Amino acid sequence: MLFRNITLLDENFNVQENMYVGIKGDRIDYIGDIMPEEDYGEVYEGTGKLLMSGFFNSHAHTPMTLMRGYGESMSLHDWLNKRIFPFEAHLTGDDVYYATLLGIAESLRFGIVSTTDMYYFCDRIAEAFIASGAKANISRGITCFTDDDLKDIPAYRESKELYEQYNESGEGRIRIDMSLHAEYTSTPKIVAQLAELTKELGAQMHVHISETKEEHEGCKERHQGKTPVEYLNDLGLLDCKTTAAHCVYVEGRDFQILKEKGVTVASNPVSNLKLASGVCNVPRLLEEGINVAIGTDSVASNNSLNFIEEMKFFGLLHKERFKDPRLTTPRQTLYAGTRAGAIGQGREDTGILKKGYKADLIVLDITGPHMYPAHDLVNNLVYSASGSDVVLTMVDGKVLYREGEFLTIDMEKVRFETKRSIDRIVEALK
Amino acid sequence: MLFRNITLLDENFNVQENMYVGIKGDRIDYIGDIMPEEDYGEVYEGTGKLLMSGFFNSHAHTPMTLMRGYGESMSLHDWLNKRIFPFEAHLTGDDVYYATLLGIAESLRFGIVSTTDMYYFCDRIAEAFIASGAKANISRGITCFTDDDLKDIPAYRESKELYEQYNESGEGRIRIDMSLHAEYTSTPKIVAQLAELTKELGAQMHVHISETKEEHEGCKERHQGKTPVEYLNDLGLLDCKTTAAHCVYVEGRDFQILKEKGVTVASNPVSNLKLASGVCNVPRLLEEGINVAIGTDSVASNNSLNFIEEMKFFGLLHKERFKDPRLTTPRQTLYAGTRAGAIGQGREDTGILKKGYKADLIVLDITGPHMYPAHDLVNNLVYSASGSDVVLTMVDGKVLYREGEFLTIDMEKVRFETKRSIDRIVEALK
Repeated sequence: MLFRNITLLDENFNVQENMYVGIKGDRIDYIGDIMPEEDYGEVYEGTGKLLMSGFFNSHAHTPMTLMRGYGESMSLHDWLNKRIFPFEAHLTGDDVYYATLLGIAESLRFGIVSTTDMYYFCDRIAEAFIASGAKANISRGITCFTDDDLKDIPAYRESKELYEQYNESGEGRIRIDMSLHAEYTSTPKIVAQLAELTKELGAQMHVHISETKEEHEGCKERHQGKTPVEYLNDLGLLDCKTTAAHCVYVEGRDFQILKEKGVTVASNPVSNLKLASGVCNVPRLLEEGINVAIGTDSVASNNSLNFIEEMKFFGLLHKERFKDPRLTTPRQTLYAGTRAGAIGQGREDTGILKKGYKADLIVLDITGPHMYPAHDLVNNLVYSASGSDVVLTMVDGKVLYREGEFLTIDMEKVRFETKRSIDRIVEALK
Repeated sequence: MLFRNITLLDENFNVQENMYVGIKGDRIDYIGDIMPEEDYGEVYEGTGKLLMSGFFNSHAHTPMTLMRGYGESMSLHDWLNKRIFPFEAHLTGDDVYYATLLGIAESLRFGIVSTTDMYYFCDRIAEAFIASGAKANISRGITCFTDDDLKDIPAYRESKELYEQYNESGEGRIRIDMSLHAEYTSTPKIVAQLAELTKELGAQMHVHISETKEEHEGCKERHQGKTPVEYLNDLGLLDCKTTAAHCVYVEGRDFQILKEKGVTVASNPVSNLKLASGVCNVPRLLEEGINVAIGTDSVASNNSLNFIEEMKFFGLLHKERFKDPRLTTPRQTLYAGTRAGAIGQGREDTGILKKGYKADLIVLDITGPHMYPAHDLVNNLVYSASGSDVVLTMVDGKVLYREGEFLTIDMEKVRFETKRSIDRIVEALK
């Protein structure tokens, strides 16, 4: 495909107009301000459109689409124990497969090209992502409350099998990460063993850290005053290349450790508000030079995968919380939503528009009245755009979503199957 | 028009499916679950669509569309003094007319049927609203820093003339309110005189109250410990039917006064974040039984009029700030965005779907993957919907926006004229 006369966001997050971008195979083959000589196939007329990197959703539980809006305005305890856990207890692999496809469709519609996911029935999640053509780093969250050895824990064995079977599958679009669910759902023994085995495997790590005050303070009580970051680091976990979701309550030496260990922090602003968890100190993390990416968390606590909206929350919350409207610039936000996420997933060759990089791209319609005027289009992208301005989503050079159509997902089948899952589970819970 | 087989949000904010709604003139003439006998003209096929009240934007400065994204990541002082005030100094009536039309187009695209607006060149604002067919409560914010008499202040004379010329114009869609800009931009003498003359006129009042901590604490220093609410109330201002924008720092006896005086509080969550002002204690206001509505403020501090997005911010912020995920339910949010706004504007006959009420309605496409499943559609509307899901906006029974088309606004002309305004002003500021 050749994008003609299109506005684009270049690798330095600057806006360039009237550009040509040629895609060959799964790569960006040409970026220039003159028509290339090579024939790239379909010519996409770019007038009134913006081409940029797709979004990298750095923390999600995609199959939870089935629980969108299921139980609202409840305490966290009641919501988990009366709604989410009972619902999840009924899930089958088939449920998860179609629920994942539904979540991928929503992701593509909102310009997400790759997702860092943690859930279970991960083989089915992997199959759904492979079928859709989207990218994902998938992990099976490991929990353990007893004195078991890691190798005896089914979730670990699943993780290992998953890694062997699916890592680098789907022409490399699927990565399998290891995952410790969290400090408060594991034992020191498990953490240390998992760190060791993950390093041996060469896999990445995905873990929840300091999401709530209870978790953070509780950890300090349980472990001689150590914060979750300190505790997990002492056990070697952060020696793995790690994505740490949330980090709302990190403090003191935590910042230094996150920086030294090259941890990617996935901030989930909407979910952190909705569950009354708190606001992550992103400005401090950025100041320390830590790689900060953006996640949606699950739609059960969001309740959408509207990534542009998520970026607006991310871009605005810190200004108020830390009392300085200069904090978190639109360019910092866009970087967090794209390139920082790609780096966090270990995908160095994507997340920006650059010749030779993977063609994981989106096109936005920028002709709406809400996008005009554009004193600086980058400001409009973060603060004015609507999630639905995305009109095309391409992964590895293949168009997966275009103007309402999902080219790899049979939405009628997905609706039919997810409805059947929901009806069955809701009936069983009556 | 007859909406057929449509899902609707009824006057109690409950969802009803497969309904018929007939519009006659500017009113809702029929709501029922069977096909009416009467011929209402065009039949609108409602499958996959939701019909509900349009949104009431309860605090805005619509012509500031020209300054969207103009100056970001600056301190409030620099932003105002280096960007906004110098830009505004160059505005002409023609600039304001087309800038308002641009803002109305954006409003209609996002389902806003009526706007409570405060700015200057208000005659041109009124003309723009009249031409568009949308509703507005328009006011000229009065400021005074000297010992002048109110009647000698040009902004007051403008307000008075505006009231005489435009109140109830546009078949009643236009209301002219009086406006004190704020406590810190006026004198006690002016406040008392304006209160008196507004009551004589029978007009409503629109005022900024306790937007920032500086304003709130400064007022207490200036006026014997009185908060802005106490001070303005003591001078009689709140005896007028008042919309008070922001109220972020209201405290103590303020709640009781706001309740007793029947003040509508317009909360502007996005603007309050972006300018690092704070988070309004909406849960407490609601608990006291105060009418709380939602505003976008200007797009210079938002930067859009995406009302569904604004509702999501409104619906989520209080959960985190006041540490309780049960706070501000989706139904409270929807009420604030519709019926509470209509009441605040003095428009008792709109803001809900009810037979005999004005047909100020919107249609949303609810078939997107982000709107599925719908365990409770009201939850999805507030937390999952995208602003662009609005596909039709009707005011007083007339369709003003439909699937990308603005039926009363010449967008090409608006773009041409606003571009000319911006180019001229930006050039002059060089």
